[in-house]
Amino acid sequence: MFAPVYLDHNATTPLDAAVLEAMLPWLQSQFGNPSSRHEYGRAARRAVDDARQQVAEAVGAHPTEVVFTSGGSEANNLFIKGAAACLKPGLLAVSAIEHPCIIKPADQLTKLGWQVERVGVDAAGRVESNSWKEVLAQQPRLLSVMRANNETGVLQEIETLAGAALPTGAWFHTDAVQALGKLPISFREWNRAGVHAMTISAHKIGGPKGAAALVLDKRVELAPLIAGGGHERGLRSGTENVPAIVGFGVAAMLAVAREAETSLRLEKLRDQLEAGLVTIGARLFGAAAQRLPNTSYFALPDIDGETLVGKLDREGFAVASGAACSSANPEPSHVLSAMGVAPELSRGAVRVSLGYATTQKEIEDFLNTLQSTVVGLQQMTSFRRDAA
Amino acid sequence: MFAPVYLDHNATTPLDAAVLEAMLPWLQSQFGNPSSRHEYGRAARRAVDDARQQVAEAVGAHPTEVVFTSGGSEANNLFIKGAAACLKPGLLAVSAIEHPCIIKPADQLTKLGWQVERVGVDAAGRVESNSWKEVLAQQPRLLSVMRANNETGVLQEIETLAGAALPTGAWFHTDAVQALGKLPISFREWNRAGVHAMTISAHKIGGPKGAAALVLDKRVELAPLIAGGGHERGLRSGTENVPAIVGFGVAAMLAVAREAETSLRLEKLRDQLEAGLVTIGARLFGAAAQRLPNTSYFALPDIDGETLVGKLDREGFAVASGAACSSANPEPSHVLSAMGVAPELSRGAVRVSLGYATTQKEIEDFLNTLQSTVVGLQQMTSFRRDAA
Repeated sequence: MFAPVYLDHNATTPLDAAVLEAMLPWLQSQFGNPSSRHEYGRAARRAVDDARQQVAEAVGAHPTEVVFTSGGSEANNLFIKGAAACLKPGLLAVSAIEHPCIIKPADQLTKLGWQVERVGVDAAGRVESNSWKEVLAQQPRLLSVMRANNETGVLQEIETLAGAALPTGAWFHTDAVQALGKLPISFREWNRAGVHAMTISAHKIGGPKGAAALVLDKRVELAPLIAGGGHERGLRSGTENVPAIVGFGVAAMLAVAREAETSLRLEKLRDQLEAGLVTIGARLFGAAAQRLPNTSYFALPDIDGETLVGKLDREGFAVASGAACSSANPEPSHVLSAMGVAPELSRGAVRVSLGYATTQKEIEDFLNTLQSTVVGLQQMTSFRRDAA
Repeated sequence: MFAPVYLDHNATTPLDAAVLEAMLPWLQSQFGNPSSRHEYGRAARRAVDDARQQVAEAVGAHPTEVVFTSGGSEANNLFIKGAAACLKPGLLAVSAIEHPCIIKPADQLTKLGWQVERVGVDAAGRVESNSWKEVLAQQPRLLSVMRANNETGVLQEIETLAGAALPTGAWFHTDAVQALGKLPISFREWNRAGVHAMTISAHKIGGPKGAAALVLDKRVELAPLIAGGGHERGLRSGTENVPAIVGFGVAAMLAVAREAETSLRLEKLRDQLEAGLVTIGARLFGAAAQRLPNTSYFALPDIDGETLVGKLDREGFAVASGAACSSANPEPSHVLSAMGVAPELSRGAVRVSLGYATTQKEIEDFLNTLQSTVVGLQQMTSFRRDAA
């Protein structure tokens, strides 16, 4: 079978073989509903409890702070809408570069009387500290700033931002989906600094699709998005996805255990990749900021990102253009727009995101293929230009 | 390994081996994100499309009417809250025996200015036709009545109820989670009769946990519960749970293909079970109504349901007491209360729900074990009574 080189780990990751192995019994003989009061049910309940413990340990949280959801989008919506439902409408501020699953539910709140501010970022993609101060001066009730951006990999100083917000009394949430497994995370430390909630997801760290969590300071009152049987302390009803939750637990442990070594290795590969990209003439986005060790986001002058991704796909390399997570949306990236990148350049955006199994040979092969592809495309462009 | 006899199929079902086999490639080499524009992504997108086609065919719907969610609870909440968000607050009427994942979101709507009516049922558990007429006379905007009750298995005449509601212009939703695979379902026919939305779920039909659907008439305007990347026609954002959705498609096809034969076989076993239950002195709930072929719900005088379920569990039989789907909630069943069953009897409620693999020998063994367990418990009760 043809297996292209996968360099799109910020979109999703291959399921780790050890994770699948841990999941299999729960997809076979151990199929019980954790709410059932018989042996099948109790076994499933123990499995969910164990996974909750594993996830909590991996991110320095208490197991009772972990609310399992079906995915990161659900966890982000649960925080935004769930917290808003328990507060008087007021100001919600989010960074301008949040994932759509923060920006869209925030926009939905305007219908319920909320005012929504998008806090700008500088040219390197970091939340602008003056804008942050200005928004804090307006007595916000809810705040959300991601730890690491999915497109650029640029990091935000979550503890600094949350610390500054602490006197306002607003609840501060961070989407840490892209940070988990790539950087150390301690919810306990963040919580001390003023972070009240955090989203993490399994399928970005070698775990399965279908499991994620909102890690939540218990002082935050939250209305459930999915109400019903009262699962997850009443915050998320519905039969627990036992196999996926079990997989999440194992994936979280593995990702955290491997984090330091993997990040060091990938950062070197990433630097090698970027040295090559610059030689080919690429413009790197966010490179002036602290970034995830695995992500390169760039554009090549006069080359359309979609076209380049399509060509590379046919050559056997899976990479992303613009915002890869959102479906069927070919508009220029809102992240790059917020960074002040001109639409002409932004349309060329391509993201390469490395993962646990990425090798040096893959990076070398990718650079060679990119070079020849770019030469071909530039010849075509200059031919078109001459003809025009 | 000790494998108790599983007679709790209304809580969840074992994953069919053919379903797991279909899922495995999507848990291994085919791990792409359907939104990615490379071969991994396109393969995942095709798999989701194929599953959507299979689910649609299985329930007589058009693929574009199928909105995948993470579970039945989410699909029910999506309809109730999503439809309400697009309407002026008014009257929402649901039957008194709905699952908590209908009743709770309905109750949440009262905060937003909605009036919620619970329509009563008769002693056999059928929606009371006079109460239905009364509620329709009050110009409801939203209606939800389940096709088959999870505890009693009692069926509602969905087409009749929806037909009567048609002139009101209200959107009519039915929770068909327990009906799928046990009765024929045609959304097309129901839709003609006035049903606008339907919930179905994979893990009740030999499919995986983590996939379900809201089947939706496209005239119904719906605000997403989970907003973000715009997946599922903007009605449910979040990376699709590809393996679970693939499993749902195969499980739906299998369940519908097997439905007629399985239902006939299980109905005979159920009748045999109930003949035995009556001999032991059980009082059957809902037996005067049309019911699912696989469900028996009963109580034995002076015997606590929880206690009996615990004893049977130790003897190797997995059955449910009261409402099994809802977690850690030992209150008497709201379904039996609505049917006018006295709390003394209702506390004895035990549910036996048969499944595809249930055998005649299992039923015979169960009846023998039940008989001896009941004799033991009755002796204990009369001993206690004498001592008191």
